[in-house]
Parts: sequence; C-alpha cells; structure tokens
Amino acid sequence: MRAALFKAPRSIEVGDRPDASISEPTDAVVRVALACVCGSDLWYYRGDSEFEPGPIGHEFVGVVEDVGAEVQDIAKGDLVIAPFAFSDGTCPHCRHGITSACANGGFFPMNGDGGQGEAVRVPLADGTLVPVPANGHSDQTMRSLLTLSDVMCTGHHAAACAGVKAGDTVAVVGDGAVGLCGVIAAKRLGAERIVALSHHQARQELAREFGATDIVEQRGEEATEAVMDLTDRVGVDATLECVGTGQAMDTAFAIARPGSMVGYVGVPHGVELPLQEMFFHNKGLLGGSAPVRAYIPELLGDVLEGRINPGRVLDFETDLDGIAEAYAAMDERRAIKSLVRVGAA
Amino acid sequence: MRAALFKAPRSIEVGDRPDASISEPTDAVVRVALACVCGSDLWYYRGDSEFEPGPIGHEFVGVVEDVGAEVQDIAKGDLVIAPFAFSDGTCPHCRHGITSACANGGFFPMNGDGGQGEAVRVPLADGTLVPVPANGHSDQTMRSLLTLSDVMCTGHHAAACAGVKAGDTVAVVGDGAVGLCGVIAAKRLGAERIVALSHHQARQELAREFGATDIVEQRGEEATEAVMDLTDRVGVDATLECVGTGQAMDTAFAIARPGSMVGYVGVPHGVELPLQEMFFHNKGLLGGSAPVRAYIPELLGDVLEGRINPGRVLDFETDLDGIAEAYAAMDERRAIKSLVRVGAA
Repeated sequence: MRAALFKAPRSIEVGDRPDASISEPTDAVVRVALACVCGSDLWYYRGDSEFEPGPIGHEFVGVVEDVGAEVQDIAKGDLVIAPFAFSDGTCPHCRHGITSACANGGFFPMNGDGGQGEAVRVPLADGTLVPVPANGHSDQTMRSLLTLSDVMCTGHHAAACAGVKAGDTVAVVGDGAVGLCGVIAAKRLGAERIVALSHHQARQELAREFGATDIVEQRGEEATEAVMDLTDRVGVDATLECVGTGQAMDTAFAIARPGSMVGYVGVPHGVELPLQEMFFHNKGLLGGSAPVRAYIPELLGDVLEGRINPGRVLDFETDLDGIAEAYAAMDERRAIKSLVRVGAA
Repeated sequence: MRAALFKAPRSIEVGDRPDASISEPTDAVVRVALACVCGSDLWYYRGDSEFEPGPIGHEFVGVVEDVGAEVQDIAKGDLVIAPFAFSDGTCPHCRHGITSACANGGFFPMNGDGGQGEAVRVPLADGTLVPVPANGHSDQTMRSLLTLSDVMCTGHHAAACAGVKAGDTVAVVGDGAVGLCGVIAAKRLGAERIVALSHHQARQELAREFGATDIVEQRGEEATEAVMDLTDRVGVDATLECVGTGQAMDTAFAIARPGSMVGYVGVPHGVELPLQEMFFHNKGLLGGSAPVRAYIPELLGDVLEGRINPGRVLDFETDLDGIAEAYAAMDERRAIKSLVRVGAA
C-alpha cells in the first residue's frame, strides 16, 4: 500500500509499505478515506522535535476493512473516526476519561502505520474507534468528522480544562486549527464573550464565524494590554492556550484573572511557567494530550446535526501524492490545516 | 503597645510600637487575644526570603476595640477572625472568591501592624474581618477559630484546588500544620482514603486522628513507590502539596494519577515544574495564597459545632515574651505550630 513517509525534516514523500493487516485479535484494519496534517506534525517537519523516519500522521476517518477475532463493537464496513491515540477503554486511566494515558495504549504511528496512508492497523479497536451512524455523509460533514480525530476534540479539551462555563469571558491564544476549534468549544459551552488572539485576517474571519466576539491582533505585551483593557483590567474567566510556545503561555497567564484556569493543549516547546504569578494570583494550569476518544461521543451529535462546523478549518486540500505540499502549505502558513483525500468513504 | 518585631533572620523580639489606631474610616482596631506563628514566617526567620525589619505575624483572633466611621458590619466588642490578607469584598477578584488577590487589599503587616502584637489596625474591616457568633468559647474552640485565620483555610484551599470529592483517594504531601489541616479538609470533603506523607510519629498520630487512613514514611522516590503501590500503580485522585519545596512538588506530580489536580499552597521555593509529565499525563496545578476570607464562613460552623478540631495542630504555647522561643520551636521541628497568648478574648 502507499503511505506518506517521513524521511527527514522538510522531507516527506509517498512510498510503498506492507499492507496493513491484523496482527492481534483486538486489531481492526481501517481503509483511510480522509486524513490531515496536524500542527504537531510540523514540530517534526521543522526539526524542532525528533521523529523516527517512517510512517507519519495520526488523524483519519475511514471504513473498516477487517477486524480481529476478539473485536466486538466494530464491524467491517463501519465508517469510523480514529482518535490520534489508541486505548483499551477499560484501564483505570480510560475509566477516568484520560484515554490518552491508557495503560495499554499508544499514539499513531506507534502501531506501525501512520494516518497519512491508504490503510492503518488500529490496535484495541473496540476501545479506540468510534463508529459513525449511517454512511453517505456530505463532504462538509465528513470534513468535520475528520476534525474529531484530533483538533476539534483538542480545542474542546482546552476549553474543558480551562473550565469554560455559561456566561464566561474567554480568551483563546492561538489561531491555528486547534485555537479556532477552541473558539467553537468555548461558544458551545456557553461563553458569552470570546476574545480570539489572531494576526491573520482569514483566521480572524473564521474565528468570528465560530463565535469570537472580539479580535486582538497585537502580540506579546501589547496583546496582554489589549485583553486587559477589554476586561476592565480584571482578566478573563478562562484562557485557552493553543500554541505551545513560551510567549503564548506567558500571554495566557498574563490575561487570566486570579482564580482562573489556563487550559493548554499545544505541546510545550521552550515554555517556562511563571510560577510566582501562578501562586500569588491563584492561576491554574491543566491540559495536555487530549483524551479525544472520551470526547468524540459528546461532540459527534453536534457535528452530524450541523450545529458545529469545525471542518471549516481544513482550507487546503490535496491527495497522497501532494503530501509534501500539504505540509509546506501549513509550514508557510498558507493553510490553516491541510486535508489529504486518500480513498472512498 | 507591645509587639513582636523582626530584627534579622533568627532575631525576633518584643518591642514597643505606637498604639494601633484608626487612620481610615474603613479601619477597625482589633485587640489580639490569640496569635500564632506561620510556616511562611519561618522562610523569613531562616533568611530564605526577604523581610523588612519591623512588625511580623498575620494570624490572629481578637476583640474589636474601635471602628472607623464607615464600618457597618463590625462593631466594638465583636470577637473576630482576621484572615492573613485584608480585602474589600467588593472588587471583581473578591466577587470571584479570590480575596487574596483583592485589587485594594494586602497582606499583614503591610497595614503597619503585625498579628503577633497586642493590637492591630485592620484595613477594610467590613470586607476583612469575620465576627464569631457569641463569646465565651472554650479554649479548644478558640484555638480552632485561630486556625481559620490561615492554616485550616489554607489546607482547605489545597483540597478544593485539588478537586477532592466524595469517594476519592487523596494524598497529602507535608505534615506541617497546613498538611494536617489538609487531611481534615480532605476528610470533610468526603475522601474515602487519605494517604499522609509524614516522617514524624507525633504528626502521623495527629494525621490519623484527623482522618488519614494510610501513612507513608519514606522520602523522595521511595515515597512515590509506596503511594503507587497503595494505589495499584494508578496514582491518587487528588494531591495536596503543602510544603513548597522542589522535592515535595516532584513527589506530588509523581503520585497524581493522569487527569488529576495537584492543589498547592506552600510558597514555592526552588520548585521547577515537571511540564512534560504534566502535559503528557494531563496532570494539573492550581493553588496559591488561600482566599481565606472567602472560606471562613463555610468552615466556621464545623469549628463551632466541634465537627473539626484544627486547633489540635497548636502543640506549643507561649506568650508575647516567649516569641523567640515560639519561632525556635517550629524552626527546630519541636513544635508543629506555636500559639502565642496575647490578651483576653
């Protein structure tokens, strides 16, 4: 089968791989319909984090082609969403809702196949995959279903960790796909005012479409001042940090009001936490690798019924042969997020 | 009037000060009945943190001697509890319950008087002081009322920030007065199992009396292993970090289960947060200077009706003349916490 292969930083190309196949009785093989490129893939692409040469990608939806003998809840022909981590659904961490810390799980492509390829062996299929009711969804719906494999659930995780509740004033630091999904999530949880920090006009427009009420275009301390001015110098009730850099984290804590939480989901790179500020103003931090599997059931209905349209973040598309361009477009910020059409749904 | 005066590290003595008096119409003057020494005072005593020579102390109960013209809710003769921070009760941070970040407040002795003295000018009296119903309480009750000025509310803050709920397995790192009050708080919030990390037999016994079900005597990585063994290698549902050192924080995060919170209340000294562990296992951090004023009403009834007895942490007592010994006893860990009897209630 054909799959995207990471060769080295800035070198990703399509190559041949052994066909994905069942190796454990709890496996399923999923034929990929749609995949996409993640902001976290860019850390590897840019050489900012180590990555083993080989298959890459961890966001995909597709159709189940085969299941192992012990798989009970997933059947051949099911349209399924694959969270970026696989998990058994039964260990203590999964039962506490932190499927991304599953005692027996892992992250794609630790399973051997990446999501940016024609097919994927999915371990622990019953615990991992979420079947989507019915088939034949519109392309718009399929795109939004794809975002449930990571970015929409990750934005929701930021909002949940920040403790967003009805009536809150919320700030979202970062206008990437996750930040934009964070705006959707904050709106969905009842935020009254949503301040999106964004420097790019197209992203600002999408943020407004998703529910942002205010846009702050400044950077660094100027952004902090702008948000503080918008909130009568009090700060916001909940802050979503959706970047992962030191500057984004500094801004997040500077605009959080005392007693509030910063929900963070960007993999931290060069972050030093402002512990004295956190302590003396009671500003908390919670987040991390989103337990996507635990959130999909709660968000799926809103996608299927069109109440949220996170698929709108996929503003560039190509096929497997265009995988290098899919990365380059995001790296150069020509695209918010790149969709890769792989096969039929 | 006479008051304890910080001269230099390891040098605290009683001296004469101008009588406390009303200077703002929102002030009250409180004649101190009981005061005590805080673990945070030891940072200054030991020279680990800077402290301006002069009055010291921030935990006291006493009787209102005078009130300014604008004070409405506090009257002469009231027995009152003074939280360690003064606050107006009306600013946005106070309304959000974070009275320790009051926009117009501060910490004793920023007001000019320390709590370890005969009388104290209390700014923003209506927002700050909590009157205690009736007078003539037993000495045991008075001691417990005194702990509401800081340690009991601070232990409660750690538990609240850690999100302790009914049925939880909770760990308390630190067996000082705050840690022991954290055990009371965890029990009060319904924790089913409470693991106290303590190296001292007398403190272990008090921890058990307060509700600890398990004691871990080891230190560092051995303590972590012991707690992990007690929890089937899962970790605890909520962790209270009540010390403020790097080792205590490392232990707290090592024993927290993925998805859980570390509530921390020890002023951080030499702490470096394990951000990768926090991110990849979704372990959160919330805490800081406790909003004592906001918690007293909720805890007062339990003290007055004898359901909790935090005053038991005061295991050494002296009077103002013995102030140096009050500090030395805590510094040398001969005392958990030193009571200073100043005047009549």
